[in-house]
Amino acid sequence: MVQRLIEKIQDTKAPVCVGLDPMLGYIPEQVLEKAFDEFGETLKGAAEAVWQFNRELVDATADLIPAVKPQIAMYEQFGLEGLKVYERTVRYCREKGLIVIGDVKRGDIGSTSAAYAAGHIGRVKVGGASFAGFDTDYITVNPYLGTDGVKPFVDACSEYDRGIFVLVKTSNPSSGEFQDCLIDGRPLYELVADKVAEWGSASMDGAYSNVGAVVGATYPEMSRALRKQMPRTYFLVPGYGAQGGAAEDLRHCFNEDGLGAIVNSSRGIIAAWKKEEYADFGAGRFGEAARQAVMDMIQDINRVL
Amino acid sequence: MVQRLIEKIQDTKAPVCVGLDPMLGYIPEQVLEKAFDEFGETLKGAAEAVWQFNRELVDATADLIPAVKPQIAMYEQFGLEGLKVYERTVRYCREKGLIVIGDVKRGDIGSTSAAYAAGHIGRVKVGGASFAGFDTDYITVNPYLGTDGVKPFVDACSEYDRGIFVLVKTSNPSSGEFQDCLIDGRPLYELVADKVAEWGSASMDGAYSNVGAVVGATYPEMSRALRKQMPRTYFLVPGYGAQGGAAEDLRHCFNEDGLGAIVNSSRGIIAAWKKEEYADFGAGRFGEAARQAVMDMIQDINRVL
Repeated sequence: MVQRLIEKIQDTKAPVCVGLDPMLGYIPEQVLEKAFDEFGETLKGAAEAVWQFNRELVDATADLIPAVKPQIAMYEQFGLEGLKVYERTVRYCREKGLIVIGDVKRGDIGSTSAAYAAGHIGRVKVGGASFAGFDTDYITVNPYLGTDGVKPFVDACSEYDRGIFVLVKTSNPSSGEFQDCLIDGRPLYELVADKVAEWGSASMDGAYSNVGAVVGATYPEMSRALRKQMPRTYFLVPGYGAQGGAAEDLRHCFNEDGLGAIVNSSRGIIAAWKKEEYADFGAGRFGEAARQAVMDMIQDINRVL
Repeated sequence: MVQRLIEKIQDTKAPVCVGLDPMLGYIPEQVLEKAFDEFGETLKGAAEAVWQFNRELVDATADLIPAVKPQIAMYEQFGLEGLKVYERTVRYCREKGLIVIGDVKRGDIGSTSAAYAAGHIGRVKVGGASFAGFDTDYITVNPYLGTDGVKPFVDACSEYDRGIFVLVKTSNPSSGEFQDCLIDGRPLYELVADKVAEWGSASMDGAYSNVGAVVGATYPEMSRALRKQMPRTYFLVPGYGAQGGAAEDLRHCFNEDGLGAIVNSSRGIIAAWKKEEYADFGAGRFGEAARQAVMDMIQDINRVL
């Protein structure tokens, strides 16, 4: 899987990923109004607005980028109607040739993780047949339960040529509360990183592993050390832009080969039309604003590589 | 919320919870066949089988128990069709007066956790209206991202009178890999426990907090220490029965008042009909086998309290 991701990144010259995290507050009034006119101010109406918003964003940016990362919580908040649109968005993006990283942060005891893996990156057996539920290329995984909670995801990577990004060091302000705790002088996230590298050795695809790591852009010194510690692990880097990470902070997430990381931006792209910088586009041309924001982000990141 | 849970536990004299984790392998042939006859060997067929299985289990046990704990992964593996049955199961159980603990183990950065909280234990705003998506009483939460990733769930507990159980020490074999790491001489799970107690103080309901903890039955010495460390925290205790935890191991999860813990069993109840002990019921009376297994479990646990 990771080789497909690398090819897409090289084709687009863009180690970036657009986070499809559609809060209703990011969706222009005209899109909301149309959806509410049709389905009322209901979960179905909200889901329809999200879908129309996503579709325009994807249409406006798909040729520029290798991947998208829908955050499933933003769909799950609308219950089943929202999850229908999550599935529809995943399908639409894959049809457009995009690699889809489902940001689901699942993780549980072994048998339960196996069920999550089947539903998101694998297939589930039903009698003599098998089916892919949400069918994303990659998902994010939480490591708190240890090896037996992660292994079923790694197995699915190998069996179905998919990938995962395991949370190592997250981008949020309180990520250090547990992740930075020192164990024999080393922070917990480094111990997790050791395990990620070990797990990843069971699912190599060329020079890199299908088992990647989430490493926040907001802690550049830590990502520098993690890059050295996990040379064959691809990084998914959240926190660029709206969360405070700058392009200079990202340099150390990449290897000498210019590979090794894909940087996500969500709000900075999908809500670009609300930023002063892109205000000229207006709410009516929110897709074009997102496109311009993607081009600016690519330039910003390539500048420091 | 926790007071409602305590009342239900006292009414039933049963500090137990049935895990509705319906793997297809647990469902008797006649239930599968009927569902496949109607909907084929499809995701919808599998979901229908799960629903019929759940309904009979709930009908057979609801008067004996305070709560059920559906594991959402077992539904999510069947994609949208599975999640429809998750929602239907939640609704059915709540109509029967059961407290429903959604075992979802969600957790992310603040804004994302807020979306999960809205979808599972809160309400989401759509225009001038608001809706509850999955509408469970409790959910389980993963603490790896720290305070800002957990706080939105705690806020929802207070606002909507709901509860959460935060993973502290899980029941699986490799739970110690990270959770037991020593930080200044104390294991990580104790640091998490400190935080759970602190978070919980913001959502008290009588003598206990709406913010509970997941503490596995499989590590009795640890649960003894955690019980002392978090006297006002309710424990959700997985791992009894099939995972290896015995009743004697559970004693220390309870406080002197006889309260403080609810013990879950999944496979041991819902697949009781497959165990030698309950073989006389046969596959046709799997509900009655589950009922007997619940009665035996209640007796087993009350024996040591």
